[in-house]
Amino acid sequence: MSNPKESIHRALDSFRIETPSWGYSDTGTRFGKFHQPAAAIDLDDKLADAAHVHRLTGCCPTVATHVLWDFAPGTDPAAVARKAGSLGIAIGSINPNLFQDQAYKLGSVGSPFEAARDQALAHIIDCIKLGQVTGSKAVSLWFADGTNYPGQDNIRARKHRFESALKEAHGHLSQDQIMLVEYKPFEPAFYQTDLADWGMSFLTAKKAGPQAKVLVDTGHHYLSQNIEQIVAWLLDEDMLGGFHFNDRRYADDDLTLGSIDPYQIFRIFHEIHLFAWERGGVYPEIEYMIDQSHNLKPKIEAMIQTVCTAQELYAKAALVDHEALLAAQAKGDIVDAELCLKKAFNTDVTEAIAAWRTAKGLAADPLLAHRASGYAEKAGAERAKRRQELGIATEHSYA
Amino acid sequence: MSNPKESIHRALDSFRIETPSWGYSDTGTRFGKFHQPAAAIDLDDKLADAAHVHRLTGCCPTVATHVLWDFAPGTDPAAVARKAGSLGIAIGSINPNLFQDQAYKLGSVGSPFEAARDQALAHIIDCIKLGQVTGSKAVSLWFADGTNYPGQDNIRARKHRFESALKEAHGHLSQDQIMLVEYKPFEPAFYQTDLADWGMSFLTAKKAGPQAKVLVDTGHHYLSQNIEQIVAWLLDEDMLGGFHFNDRRYADDDLTLGSIDPYQIFRIFHEIHLFAWERGGVYPEIEYMIDQSHNLKPKIEAMIQTVCTAQELYAKAALVDHEALLAAQAKGDIVDAELCLKKAFNTDVTEAIAAWRTAKGLAADPLLAHRASGYAEKAGAERAKRRQELGIATEHSYA
Amino acid sequence: MSNPKESIHRALDSFRIETPSWGYSDTGTRFGKFHQPAAAIDLDDKLADAAHVHRLTGCCPTVATHVLWDFAPGTDPAAVARKAGSLGIAIGSINPNLFQDQAYKLGSVGSPFEAARDQALAHIIDCIKLGQVTGSKAVSLWFADGTNYPGQDNIRARKHRFESALKEAHGHLSQDQIMLVEYKPFEPAFYQTDLADWGMSFLTAKKAGPQAKVLVDTGHHYLSQNIEQIVAWLLDEDMLGGFHFNDRRYADDDLTLGSIDPYQIFRIFHEIHLFAWERGGVYPEIEYMIDQSHNLKPKIEAMIQTVCTAQELYAKAALVDHEALLAAQAKGDIVDAELCLKKAFNTDVTEAIAAWRTAKGLAADPLLAHRASGYAEKAGAERAKRRQELGIATEHSYA
Amino acid sequence: MSNPKESIHRALDSFRIETPSWGYSDTGTRFGKFHQPAAAIDLDDKLADAAHVHRLTGCCPTVATHVLWDFAPGTDPAAVARKAGSLGIAIGSINPNLFQDQAYKLGSVGSPFEAARDQALAHIIDCIKLGQVTGSKAVSLWFADGTNYPGQDNIRARKHRFESALKEAHGHLSQDQIMLVEYKPFEPAFYQTDLADWGMSFLTAKKAGPQAKVLVDTGHHYLSQNIEQIVAWLLDEDMLGGFHFNDRRYADDDLTLGSIDPYQIFRIFHEIHLFAWERGGVYPEIEYMIDQSHNLKPKIEAMIQTVCTAQELYAKAALVDHEALLAAQAKGDIVDAELCLKKAFNTDVTEAIAAWRTAKGLAADPLLAHRASGYAEKAGAERAKRRQELGIATEHSYA
Repeated sequence: MSNPKESIHRALDSFRIETPSWGYSDTGTRFGKFHQPAAAIDLDDKLADAAHVHRLTGCCPTVATHVLWDFAPGTDPAAVARKAGSLGIAIGSINPNLFQDQAYKLGSVGSPFEAARDQALAHIIDCIKLGQVTGSKAVSLWFADGTNYPGQDNIRARKHRFESALKEAHGHLSQDQIMLVEYKPFEPAFYQTDLADWGMSFLTAKKAGPQAKVLVDTGHHYLSQNIEQIVAWLLDEDMLGGFHFNDRRYADDDLTLGSIDPYQIFRIFHEIHLFAWERGGVYPEIEYMIDQSHNLKPKIEAMIQTVCTAQELYAKAALVDHEALLAAQAKGDIVDAELCLKKAFNTDVTEAIAAWRTAKGLAADPLLAHRASGYAEKAGAERAKRRQELGIATEHSYA
Repeated sequence: MSNPKESIHRALDSFRIETPSWGYSDTGTRFGKFHQPAAAIDLDDKLADAAHVHRLTGCCPTVATHVLWDFAPGTDPAAVARKAGSLGIAIGSINPNLFQDQAYKLGSVGSPFEAARDQALAHIIDCIKLGQVTGSKAVSLWFADGTNYPGQDNIRARKHRFESALKEAHGHLSQDQIMLVEYKPFEPAFYQTDLADWGMSFLTAKKAGPQAKVLVDTGHHYLSQNIEQIVAWLLDEDMLGGFHFNDRRYADDDLTLGSIDPYQIFRIFHEIHLFAWERGGVYPEIEYMIDQSHNLKPKIEAMIQTVCTAQELYAKAALVDHEALLAAQAKGDIVDAELCLKKAFNTDVTEAIAAWRTAKGLAADPLLAHRASGYAEKAGAERAKRRQELGIATEHSYA
Repeated sequence: MSNPKESIHRALDSFRIETPSWGYSDTGTRFGKFHQPAAAIDLDDKLADAAHVHRLTGCCPTVATHVLWDFAPGTDPAAVARKAGSLGIAIGSINPNLFQDQAYKLGSVGSPFEAARDQALAHIIDCIKLGQVTGSKAVSLWFADGTNYPGQDNIRARKHRFESALKEAHGHLSQDQIMLVEYKPFEPAFYQTDLADWGMSFLTAKKAGPQAKVLVDTGHHYLSQNIEQIVAWLLDEDMLGGFHFNDRRYADDDLTLGSIDPYQIFRIFHEIHLFAWERGGVYPEIEYMIDQSHNLKPKIEAMIQTVCTAQELYAKAALVDHEALLAAQAKGDIVDAELCLKKAFNTDVTEAIAAWRTAKGLAADPLLAHRASGYAEKAGAERAKRRQELGIATEHSYA
Repeated sequence: MSNPKESIHRALDSFRIETPSWGYSDTGTRFGKFHQPAAAIDLDDKLADAAHVHRLTGCCPTVATHVLWDFAPGTDPAAVARKAGSLGIAIGSINPNLFQDQAYKLGSVGSPFEAARDQALAHIIDCIKLGQVTGSKAVSLWFADGTNYPGQDNIRARKHRFESALKEAHGHLSQDQIMLVEYKPFEPAFYQTDLADWGMSFLTAKKAGPQAKVLVDTGHHYLSQNIEQIVAWLLDEDMLGGFHFNDRRYADDDLTLGSIDPYQIFRIFHEIHLFAWERGGVYPEIEYMIDQSHNLKPKIEAMIQTVCTAQELYAKAALVDHEALLAAQAKGDIVDAELCLKKAFNTDVTEAIAAWRTAKGLAADPLLAHRASGYAEKAGAERAKRRQELGIATEHSYA
């Protein structure tokens, strides 16, 4: 196999990670929200923060937007795209909000109420159009739909409603757009979630049309479920559309990537490198996106941390000696096959990544560079003042 | 064994369930809150709703209060207690809020910051005093304390801070008061929760003092953990202080009791009846409290449903033939021993409970009686109007 | 809705449950096996026991066989079928053994070794032929295949091996036969199981051919996974082939049905009744089979208990008022919709089932009838003696 | 902080790991056992293998024994100890077998049958005496006791039986001996396990006496439970007696250490290093033992792999900068505190450990040294032949 440093640099060259606009503003749990002075207030702040992270890391050229929170009525999406462009970034995936409006009490496209379904579908179609105007590739669908109590609704009827809505929405996609269909076992639906696992997303996407793919959120699985196996199956079926990066220990904890189980993330990346290696180095098109909601770590630090951790684990996974692995597997030599992975995982890639960054004109350590930049302090002072002017409460809030 | 109907009536005669003030107002998940016109706005509404539920069920004579949300600064607690009394109920357990204030970002009594710890302890002591003024017996402590990332804080140092704070707080209890120490595996702390399981609550309560007991929330356990065994151990150690009733399928879902796994609740009640039977019919003092946060079911209907389900499962568990069970266990006859439980669980107790209610001058079916009463419609109309007058937004909110 | 007793009787009339030959012999955990004198020694014993259970319950006309354990080399399958027929039962599903031979150390059809794959495929084809000779309808495939350590084998290569093998096997099915493809999250594979969830079984069965369907084992799911939702999806996709009945609390515990969570089994049956009701009373063809491995309860008692529990929960689920349910769902009335299920579940169906049995000339309580029959004592005495004659050790054994 | 290499070497100098005799012989799952020619047949083989592993690693001076499997009736324990000594190792913890005998069908010291309880207690006392004769320090108690069905036995009665038995057994300990009390949530008991969690082991050990401590098996926890927190609590209460090392993904999978989640094991070691650092470098007395049952990897390779992984993660954890950590924690700087752990975990310690080994006259890579030694081939040839002579079946077996 080739030189490790080269492998790492080649891997990083093509590895792009999208940061989420909502990851720059205050978030919380149902028990409350802890405010940070430097948290973004509006879309301009979010774009500025995303551009800052991209300047520091060099690998975050797009920012995911959340339509309800980012595009206030009357906003000109084309202007937003231009604004982003002027900051050196672009608008990434478009995320409809299908859970917050009072109309969605019993679901969005899965609701028993036609009005709610119509509203949801119209919003999805609006988002598709918004994507076309902003030059965004992916429309990323997460549904909170489901039921909270046995008997609450007809599971198969809800399934049919989903199939019908996504098929219709798919018809509005331009040729360049893709539709990502996310799954999640539970929360906020606590009895049954309409798209609860990869199999449900897979079947629903298949019925929607050829531009619909599955979105894997690393925090949306049953305890002990093998995520890298799901990734391998989706790759094999040409149905892996993208990722939402985060980590968790219990439920959908939305922690920074690799903070709880870095080896698992490494193994996911390994499946992707291996798949590409078998195809002569051709990597599949995958949207790598961050979706975390760390309410304690400073927002921008947390974002940089996840980006750097993703690079680090992606780089480590690029070090697996595929030929040696294949040979060990063919002999049924479990210990040697496993050691191919462990050796790569145990390699300290800090310096190789720093060298890659330096070669790109980036700071060797983006977190330190961020801290040295004074960005957070400046934003904190300015935004705290603006918050006061706008009369935005920063004291306790409760869901 | 005695007549089933008699067993049921005797069981219900002494079974009291406390409803929570916060269960009458709008709640939600971190993804939003769905508003109900009839949801309580202020403490007066909550007391009225609790009194209504007690009138219908005859077994909910107390209402748990949540200090931060219920006792606005300047409130006269004695007046609140009188108000409750005038409605036919009394103030039940006092619940401090140790998670919402910005000071508690890194914890309350477990925080690394002395100021946060002092504020938390002072609030607990205030709650103890409030309990004395309102004639409440239990101070019910739930801590959101913990850490979200490995290394964030010193686990043993946090343990010591808890031990010290609860010991000091215990010193402020009157002889009539008890301190209930709740545990919860996770949320909102996602790496480590300071009181994560019954063992941690047990040890902490033991060190606090003799009036401190463990509070078991039926939704606060690891998946597949055997709750009735924990209940049996706590009974045996004289450390079971009370329950928070709700049900769940995944995490702390806060659904209405018995909606997902009624047999489990039955088995918990069975352990209590069995314990009492072995002591000649002397029941331990246990605070039975509801803690649910159903954001879709109508609030009062959900409350009545949980109360009725608790009665139903408590009544069924009272039907277990303890002598037959003991005999089967002594012979190691697994099938017959299990059938003692299944037979009781399978008995339809609807009519026996209806008869008990009728004998008490209550409606046979509290839910139907509530619907027939027009209470919800009336409250809905009045509260919607008041909300408008108060300028309370009822549209989308996000945590 | 119709008369409850009629609904129950109509439901029971068409409800057939297959008992497994291996459920009559000694089984255990990896920590040991506890011997029962009355446990079956050979296929004759198993057929006799299965016939006894069918005589008592009237609803177990077939017995599942496990090829390796039941059909010793040289056995004439046609003779076995005749033997069963003479006892009043028939041979049910054929279960290959693809895990026990030393060749299967790294898997059967998923093994990296061609010889193992060939041996496995040949065995499956043999089983299909065996099914044709014995007049059995279903070939039931459970694979222990998977890997124990990261890197051990190529997940996608294993997937392809499965697809190829099952497609080839499918070609050998007669028109009357079906192929059931089971899934299981883990054990004995502890890193990755080749068919780990319903989605994997679904895709694999689809690629195998139109006579391949998914087999749902009620104990083979991730903790908290919603089994009835999977059942509803499979029904909707016309891919539900059958069930393996058992219950569990933690992993694949193989306890008797409904012993831990009866309400869950009820909800599964509810999905089936509801599906049939929507189709004008036409029930889908589903193989209901028992697969339990209770190593403590007396074997035949445990079997009867599961059969009776299945009938009981199937009967309760038949009592759901579908029209009322539909109406409540259409209005979004969660409480009323849920009560449709709870009311049915809470109905005591003991007497209605006893009446159905009496009308069929069966004992009202099969368990009591079994005990009164002296069958177990007689079998115990005879088999203990035979074991001694055969020199079969009945003392401790360890896996 | 001190030089990393020094920290690593100092850490390794005092780190001893006990290998288990049963880890050298064929094991399996309930679905079968895959035979290895080089697997140990008898105690002599096991001692030889353990001595071989100690020669290669220099840190495994003791071997845990399993009384039932290792000490056949008539064995002279003193002779066994001398034999071990002549091979350069010593007898480590003594493990009674309290689950395999037919008498233990319903439990050992927790059984409802007095005869079973007496037999179990007598066996424990024999083991204590055996430990005294062999110069072993720890008697390590794992109980399979529990129940499989609701109602099967009285949970509190079983608790009392445990308390009484362990107290009596404790009275037989010499001053040098300790009693380790293990816990496990389930398997082979599937409804309720008598010592199911650390709290139950803790209370039971406390009541037994001052020489009883808790044994933490890294595979015996609920999914998502935080093991390092339990370790921290036990350290703080002076109740941590030892570990059983293995890894798992789902249940008690008994995989080699760190094969699934190495960061978790690192965090456990971190708690121990931190505890010692706070006490001025005084490490608590902890028995580090391996308990794995890998039935696919070559036995000795798997043992060496776990030993090396334990050293590697213990060494990494020794690199945490405790002063920097403390400072970050005191400031509530979550990111910096976490980075103290991540930096240490990401350090490649391969060379530093190799240097430590070389300095001790050991091979730099024990696994390679083992393979180069030809030990397995030689043992395989000899043992295969001996197996044949002894008439030991090596073909399929089923529990």
